[in-house]
Amino acid sequence: MEKKISQKIRERARRIKMLIMDVDGVLTDGRIILGSKGEELKNFYVQDGQGINLALQKGLIVALVSGRKSKVVERRAEELKISEVYQGVSLKIEVYHKFLKKYGLKNEEVAYIGDDLGDIPPLRKAGLALAPANGVKEIKDIVHYVTRASGGRGAVREAIDIILKAKKTY
Amino acid sequence: MEKKISQKIRERARRIKMLIMDVDGVLTDGRIILGSKGEELKNFYVQDGQGINLALQKGLIVALVSGRKSKVVERRAEELKISEVYQGVSLKIEVYHKFLKKYGLKNEEVAYIGDDLGDIPPLRKAGLALAPANGVKEIKDIVHYVTRASGGRGAVREAIDIILKAKKTY
Amino acid sequence: MEKKISQKIRERARRIKMLIMDVDGVLTDGRIILGSKGEELKNFYVQDGQGINLALQKGLIVALVSGRKSKVVERRAEELKISEVYQGVSLKIEVYHKFLKKYGLKNEEVAYIGDDLGDIPPLRKAGLALAPANGVKEIKDIVHYVTRASGGRGAVREAIDIILKAKKTY
Amino acid sequence: MEKKISQKIRERARRIKMLIMDVDGVLTDGRIILGSKGEELKNFYVQDGQGINLALQKGLIVALVSGRKSKVVERRAEELKISEVYQGVSLKIEVYHKFLKKYGLKNEEVAYIGDDLGDIPPLRKAGLALAPANGVKEIKDIVHYVTRASGGRGAVREAIDIILKAKKTY
Repeated sequence: MEKKISQKIRERARRIKMLIMDVDGVLTDGRIILGSKGEELKNFYVQDGQGINLALQKGLIVALVSGRKSKVVERRAEELKISEVYQGVSLKIEVYHKFLKKYGLKNEEVAYIGDDLGDIPPLRKAGLALAPANGVKEIKDIVHYVTRASGGRGAVREAIDIILKAKKTY
Repeated sequence: MEKKISQKIRERARRIKMLIMDVDGVLTDGRIILGSKGEELKNFYVQDGQGINLALQKGLIVALVSGRKSKVVERRAEELKISEVYQGVSLKIEVYHKFLKKYGLKNEEVAYIGDDLGDIPPLRKAGLALAPANGVKEIKDIVHYVTRASGGRGAVREAIDIILKAKKTY
Repeated sequence: MEKKISQKIRERARRIKMLIMDVDGVLTDGRIILGSKGEELKNFYVQDGQGINLALQKGLIVALVSGRKSKVVERRAEELKISEVYQGVSLKIEVYHKFLKKYGLKNEEVAYIGDDLGDIPPLRKAGLALAPANGVKEIKDIVHYVTRASGGRGAVREAIDIILKAKKTY
Repeated sequence: MEKKISQKIRERARRIKMLIMDVDGVLTDGRIILGSKGEELKNFYVQDGQGINLALQKGLIVALVSGRKSKVVERRAEELKISEVYQGVSLKIEVYHKFLKKYGLKNEEVAYIGDDLGDIPPLRKAGLALAPANGVKEIKDIVHYVTRASGGRGAVREAIDIILKAKKTY
């Protein structure tokens, strides 16, 4: 979080009104934890949750878009009061465009954070494209900013801090 | 734990009679582990537990204060024989003041360890303010001491070691 | 993933038609997670899953061979559409030979990734022998390539990337 | 595992006939994982299990001694065919002496690996005293050897490798 944020990134961050997040490897640490009794677990992070609370308080629109599908994500979204949750999405760019239309937003007003190939199309459009430290090389090569923190260990909090600080609402 | 403790920190630690701890990210590693069958899990650390045992034996008052609420925290507190457990607390400073009154303590006699923004008010008051290595920057900037260990991986043990060693009761 | 791949490794990777993987410590992080209610859990990684999806799409044959036995592995294999799953295997080389026969493959066309002593016989045969960063010394000493990533944290994805990129089908 | 083993440590290791291990923080990563449905989980490591298999095959006596008590430890011990399992032990030195008597062993023939204060008395007696990388400072200061690996991530495997290699039975 002590990484220097360039003036260019701050400019991009200042305009953001909505943050769209991939789930596995971004809001979680990417672990798919499976149990012998049919259970599936995910690791979220308390500081990311606090960041999302803060973002919602400051009026940012927050959304989750996941290629996989899990009841656990709904539970975490509910706890954090995130109402926009799309799971089992094969083409994330379609959901991205749906959000722009629904909220009347321009690309410059949307931040997107993702860690893998399926996130490339929305990352190419978003005004602020972010990857967590654990993102695959192809993603890190195209985003505006790679967070110091990994997914599920502060990457989302770091993204939100950058946006809120640029908007001077932190 | 091999970090050099300054004379100033030792002075502060010598006066401590009570240790108040945040839970997620301090006594745990901050992971919010959710399962598809409605379960929630937390990661505690065996060496932190041993430290708390030792602290209680040596007469330190130990308390947990958490913004979230979980049955798991009660279970861990019971196992460790921590009787002061406050969960679902929105203003931690209120619980802090309640403790001072209940035990007739001055700020100088209280140590507080926390990792996130909600811990700032009590950290500003406590005679010994501590953050785990994983604390957010805003917290690390105001505490007297940042532990080498992270939350749920020895931060609490390190805090207790500093206090008990300063009191020569380790 | 940014580790330079030598021309020799690329040559070996280019010929690969099948990838055989050990499970614990390769496709998982090696943690054997046991619970008091008889449950057993394993940590898989979302990016490894994406890599396997991609490998299957590109026509690579993918197989799991494990010395242990767990229902969880079947579940993960099903989710990833891996049909070749052998568990409770004491001599992995026997399964290795079975695959060669079944698919009419030569050693040069098989990649094998394993982390421990039981993987030595197939690793000595495979055209591309790989170990994850957490592999034991005896394994790392005999493989053609040690991935930067650890098991359950991208080792399998890295192996697949090397193969698909060498075949120019990534 | 690539740490150079001194001649002195090899001398000590050569005489070992029994390995006694603490559980939490040594055979596990020290995490006490508690769930909202009353479950408790522990993280073991596949490579440690392989090491224990090998040790038993080579005729080493293997024992677990834990200050805590958990059904999970029994399960893991059963799976690994460790028959000597003592849990809920307050004075580990008593169990240590019991083992010496039962098996007719001298101190020089026993290796002990532990990570915390309760392990000090047996560590002071054992012919080969070991601590995992995550051991507390007081323990690391008195043992003959600190493993490179942490508990639950290869420390036990490393200990066994040192013993078996010194005995030339690896």
